[in-house]
Amino acid sequence: MSQQLIFTNSPGEAIDRLVDDIKPNAIFVIVDTNTGNVVLPLLSSMSSAVSSAKIITCSAGDVNKGLEALSAIWHQLNTSGATRSSMVINVGGGMITDMGGFAAATFKRGVHFINVPTTLLAAVDASAGGKTGINFNGCKNEIGAFAEADAVVISTIFFNTLPVQELLSGYAEMIKHSLIEGRKEFDALLDFDIMDGLQDHDRLLSLIRTSVGVKERIVTEDPHEHGIRRALNLGHTVGHAFESFAMNCRHSPVPHGYAVAWGIVVELVMSTMLQGFPSDVLHRYASYVRSVYGAFDITCDDYPLLLALMAHDKKNSSPEHINFTLLANVGEVRIDCEVDTDNIKAALDIYRDLMGI
Amino acid sequence: MSQQLIFTNSPGEAIDRLVDDIKPNAIFVIVDTNTGNVVLPLLSSMSSAVSSAKIITCSAGDVNKGLEALSAIWHQLNTSGATRSSMVINVGGGMITDMGGFAAATFKRGVHFINVPTTLLAAVDASAGGKTGINFNGCKNEIGAFAEADAVVISTIFFNTLPVQELLSGYAEMIKHSLIEGRKEFDALLDFDIMDGLQDHDRLLSLIRTSVGVKERIVTEDPHEHGIRRALNLGHTVGHAFESFAMNCRHSPVPHGYAVAWGIVVELVMSTMLQGFPSDVLHRYASYVRSVYGAFDITCDDYPLLLALMAHDKKNSSPEHINFTLLANVGEVRIDCEVDTDNIKAALDIYRDLMGI
Repeated sequence: MSQQLIFTNSPGEAIDRLVDDIKPNAIFVIVDTNTGNVVLPLLSSMSSAVSSAKIITCSAGDVNKGLEALSAIWHQLNTSGATRSSMVINVGGGMITDMGGFAAATFKRGVHFINVPTTLLAAVDASAGGKTGINFNGCKNEIGAFAEADAVVISTIFFNTLPVQELLSGYAEMIKHSLIEGRKEFDALLDFDIMDGLQDHDRLLSLIRTSVGVKERIVTEDPHEHGIRRALNLGHTVGHAFESFAMNCRHSPVPHGYAVAWGIVVELVMSTMLQGFPSDVLHRYASYVRSVYGAFDITCDDYPLLLALMAHDKKNSSPEHINFTLLANVGEVRIDCEVDTDNIKAALDIYRDLMGI
Repeated sequence: MSQQLIFTNSPGEAIDRLVDDIKPNAIFVIVDTNTGNVVLPLLSSMSSAVSSAKIITCSAGDVNKGLEALSAIWHQLNTSGATRSSMVINVGGGMITDMGGFAAATFKRGVHFINVPTTLLAAVDASAGGKTGINFNGCKNEIGAFAEADAVVISTIFFNTLPVQELLSGYAEMIKHSLIEGRKEFDALLDFDIMDGLQDHDRLLSLIRTSVGVKERIVTEDPHEHGIRRALNLGHTVGHAFESFAMNCRHSPVPHGYAVAWGIVVELVMSTMLQGFPSDVLHRYASYVRSVYGAFDITCDDYPLLLALMAHDKKNSSPEHINFTLLANVGEVRIDCEVDTDNIKAALDIYRDLMGI
C-alpha cells in the first residue's frame, strides 16, 4: 500500500472522494481539544463524511501522547463497533497524526486511515514517512510502528489560525528539505515571505508540495532509516542539544523548528569547515535565520554541556567523535560524518559570530 | 524483510548462528511461567546467546495476553536499555509469540525478533504469517500488527513435555493445511500416529515443515487477508461456534484444535453437499476425528444458538447466509461460500450421524 498525497485547498471534497473510494463501514475522526474547537467545525462544514463521523477527542499537547490516551482511543474504537473495514481520520498536528496513526495501524491489526495535518510542521514532516507512535516512560516515540496512511490531505487553509511561532517552526523543516534537495528550492524558500505567507495560499501550497516531495523521495529510498534517511537529521544533532539545553538547563523551552533552524547554522559551519560547503550560502542562510528566528544565545561556558547533549543523541555511537549529517553543497548530503570536539567547538564559535552574540 | 523458517532439532545452534549474523547489542528472551520453568533451562544449555540473555517472564495463559503484560514488556525493554539494534527471542506458545512479537514490532518502531514456538500449535500456526497482537477489552487479538520475525526456529524436541491434548490441538491445524494442499499431504498425516509421534522426531519435523510451507505459501500470496488467506479459515466458522458454545453455554471449554477438527467435519459435509467434495474422503476424515478426538456432543435443540454464533463470527457479513471456506476436493479451496441456514442444519444433522451421536 502506498500513501497518496493530496495537496488541495478544498480538503472536504478530497476527504469525501477518498471515503467514496474506500467505502468504510464507519468513520472515526480523531482530534485534540484544540483542533476539535477550531478546525473540526470548519472541516465538518466542508465534508459530509466528517460531519457524520464519530468524534474521538484527545487532550492536546505532546505530554498527552502516551499509553493512556492511546488505550482510550482503542477503547472507543472497540466499543463503537469499529471493524477492519472502518476508517480513522486524524485531524491535528504531529501529536494526533502520530498517535492516531498508531492507533489505526494496530486496531484489529490495521484499519484504513487518513491524515489531515493542521500545522505546517505536521504537513511537511509528521504526516509523511509512516512514522507513528507514542511516548512511553518519559521517552519520546518509544513505542510505535512504521505505517503509512491511505492518504494525507494537505491544505494551507488550516494554518490561518496558527501562531506565527508554529508557522516558522514548520518553515524551518521546509528549509532543511530544500538544503537537502538543491539550490533552486533553497532560494525559493528564502525569497518567499512566510511571515506574510497566508496572503498567498496557492504559492505556499506549492512550496509545501515540493518540500514534502523531498521527504517522500528519501523515505521511499530508505523507509526504515538504515542509511540515506539520516539526511533528514540535518541540523537535528545540534538542534536537539539546543532544545534540551533550553528546556532542562535554562527552563525556557524553544520551539523545535527554531532549534533546528539554529542547529542547521552550526552544522553548515561544520560543512564549510570539513566538506567544502560554499561560504556564501552559509552566510546567506545565517543572516536569514538571524533576521527571522533571532539568535539562540550561548557562551563558551555552555560548550561542555552542549557537547554532552550532542553525544547523547540517539543517532550517535561513540562519545569522542559525534556523528553529523553534513552537506558538501546544497543538494549534496554526506551522512555519518564524524566530527571531533575541537571542530565542534570551533563551529559553535563561528555560529556565535554569525549570530552576532 | 522476509521471515526465515528454520526446521532443526538443534535449536540452540540455530539461535546462536542467527545472533552471529544479526549481531544485536543486547538480547532479551521472553518466556511465560511455563516455558520459563521447563523449556528455558533446556534452551540455555544449548545456546550461549540464550544463557547470557536478559529474561522477561510473563504469566502463562491467554487471559494474560493483554495490555498490562504488554506494557510490562515494553517497560522492561525501556529500562534495560534496549535499542533498535537489540533482539527479542520469544520462547513459548502462541500467547508468547503473539504478544512478544507485537512488543518487539512496536518497541522503538521495531527491533529484531526470533520466534521459538514450544507447542505444536504455535509451530504450525501462530509462529508463521506475521500476525502479532494482544487481547483487549475482552476481544481476542483486538490490537496488533502484521510483523514478521527475522526467523522462526521450529523444533519438535520441545514437544516432549506437551500434554497429549496440546499435541492433538496442533495436529488438527496440520490436517487443515493438508486438506487445503492436496491428497498426498492429507494421507501422510492420517497415516502417521501422532499419539506416538514423539518416537520419531525426524518424521514429525518433516510433516511440520510441509504443513508450515502450506501456510507460508498462502500468507505470502495474501498477507493482509483480503482473499485466499481465508482458505485458512476452513473449519473455523463452525469450530469457533463450538468453542464459544462449550465455553459460554456449557461452561466446559474444549481445546481450540479439537473444535477445529470437529468444525472441519461439519464444513466438509457442506462441501460434499454443495461443492461436490468426495464423500469417501469425508467419511475417512470423520472416522479419524471420531477415533482420535472423540465427538463434540450436540442436539438439534442447540442449532439456533450455534447458528447465531456462526453468524456472529467476524468473517461474516450477512445474518441469513453465513460465509464459509469450503472445498471442491482436497486441495481445491472455495472461499466466500454463502450457505443458508437450512443447509447448515442439514450439515449438523449429518455431522451427528457421522460422529455417532
